[in-house]
Amino acid sequence: MNTPSAHSPELISREALQQALAELFAPWVQALELRVDAVAPASVSVVLPVGEHLARVGGTLCGQAMMAAADTAMVLALMAHFGAFRPCTTVQMNTSFLRPLVGQPARVTATVIRAGKSLAFGEIDICGASDGKSVCRASVTYALL
Amino acid sequence: MNTPSAHSPELISREALQQALAELFAPWVQALELRVDAVAPASVSVVLPVGEHLARVGGTLCGQAMMAAADTAMVLALMAHFGAFRPCTTVQMNTSFLRPLVGQPARVTATVIRAGKSLAFGEIDICGASDGKSVCRASVTYALL
Amino acid sequence: MNTPSAHSPELISREALQQALAELFAPWVQALELRVDAVAPASVSVVLPVGEHLARVGGTLCGQAMMAAADTAMVLALMAHFGAFRPCTTVQMNTSFLRPLVGQPARVTATVIRAGKSLAFGEIDICGASDGKSVCRASVTYALL
Amino acid sequence: MNTPSAHSPELISREALQQALAELFAPWVQALELRVDAVAPASVSVVLPVGEHLARVGGTLCGQAMMAAADTAMVLALMAHFGAFRPCTTVQMNTSFLRPLVGQPARVTATVIRAGKSLAFGEIDICGASDGKSVCRASVTYALL
Repeated sequence: MNTPSAHSPELISREALQQALAELFAPWVQALELRVDAVAPASVSVVLPVGEHLARVGGTLCGQAMMAAADTAMVLALMAHFGAFRPCTTVQMNTSFLRPLVGQPARVTATVIRAGKSLAFGEIDICGASDGKSVCRASVTYALL
Repeated sequence: MNTPSAHSPELISREALQQALAELFAPWVQALELRVDAVAPASVSVVLPVGEHLARVGGTLCGQAMMAAADTAMVLALMAHFGAFRPCTTVQMNTSFLRPLVGQPARVTATVIRAGKSLAFGEIDICGASDGKSVCRASVTYALL
Repeated sequence: MNTPSAHSPELISREALQQALAELFAPWVQALELRVDAVAPASVSVVLPVGEHLARVGGTLCGQAMMAAADTAMVLALMAHFGAFRPCTTVQMNTSFLRPLVGQPARVTATVIRAGKSLAFGEIDICGASDGKSVCRASVTYALL
Repeated sequence: MNTPSAHSPELISREALQQALAELFAPWVQALELRVDAVAPASVSVVLPVGEHLARVGGTLCGQAMMAAADTAMVLALMAHFGAFRPCTTVQMNTSFLRPLVGQPARVTATVIRAGKSLAFGEIDICGASDGKSVCRASVTYALL
């Protein structure tokens, strides 16, 4: 059985994922200051705090930060799915920007929707952490190495 | 006529685009230290210097930086196309990661392939600045505001 | 308010959507023989019956039919959202193929996730009509004319 | 070396690709009546004749047919690249619709831009066969089985 929910490793802790953020990613990605918020067997939520360094003129969260946070959160969701870090690489990512986000942190929820032997598929929702309204949706394909 | 090459505003200068990089984008995006390299009527090339802050474990350029550079370069290509900055927003971006990039800067070439009244389409190629081999391809849709 | 659920036209009937399938689409698309199965304010499900004309060697449903059914179902979901047909055109569609589908009809569920003044965003899930397992996911951007 | 142009099997013939169209694809896909037009080491062009069965109200070529033709042409381009049919499956396809096509056949050119051990990447351009103007662009990821 190869559905994401079919196997059940011990659930990885928020602390382990937070530490992975500090170890596995480039310093420039770490500058997003993502905070792991919730962990489920095939899904991880991180919060992207609002900061002036991420804002475009006008104060909206820049799309580049949304894409980076989405891709990063999916690596953590794969860790949650597999129970540990597994070398992987992003093959393809598609992102839709639904509306701007202003004046509130973003909640980034990445979910593994299918993990096979060599490929994994995931989906990411980014919403306002205060109002819960979706601002960005992404889908990704990862190669498992 | 609505093909990108059909109108011909005076070509915007590299300096003007370099200045736009310093003014229009979030500080976190500016930390990529993109340098405008070449300008054509519907196309702009920027160089993304290699830096440790953009490297994953193993020294490869992180995909998040590629996506951010691609989206940013396309804003400049739209400036080249229109002859000036025009407010716009990314609607959708799709990125394919063909192979890793290690040990050389990246050249990011963004081209406007169609600009209508309310939507613009573009394509981005990222290649090694030394070997010229493509490592990443992206396509984007922008809403013109 | 412009969220899909914020307005509430009278819900369009299955019959009206079934008739739209026979009137608005190309004969080659009609040859898919889609049947409208369920209608909600921002979502429509259609069933794609299994037929030999849609099967690749090996008996799996061809991906071309999945993409065509997904795009078609989204036009119906926009009708459900707006309460009537509204001229629109697909701007962009991204499709991920999760696993093959064999020996059962496909259920195609299209949902409008955001409809603004000039653009609408939607997501489509295709699953086996018998086992409910997702085989394909797609996201689309439409221009509202 | 693993670039598409680095190896050189004997170039597959147009006739062999035309026959593959009649053997490998679902009858509903064959109803597109694609004609192989040109073959190069990593690229194949097919012509999609205009027919009323593919036209939406208003006479424009339906997007569903463009996506189906693009995906199909890429299978042929992979045959050209490998010198023979190799089992593969579409993992992901992203399509942008640039403008409508009316009153002329479509030329669909699929190019392999990277073929590795387990994944292949390609890009497709669809243009008017008479005026040469691009109407649709797509990018695809295939799994090589």
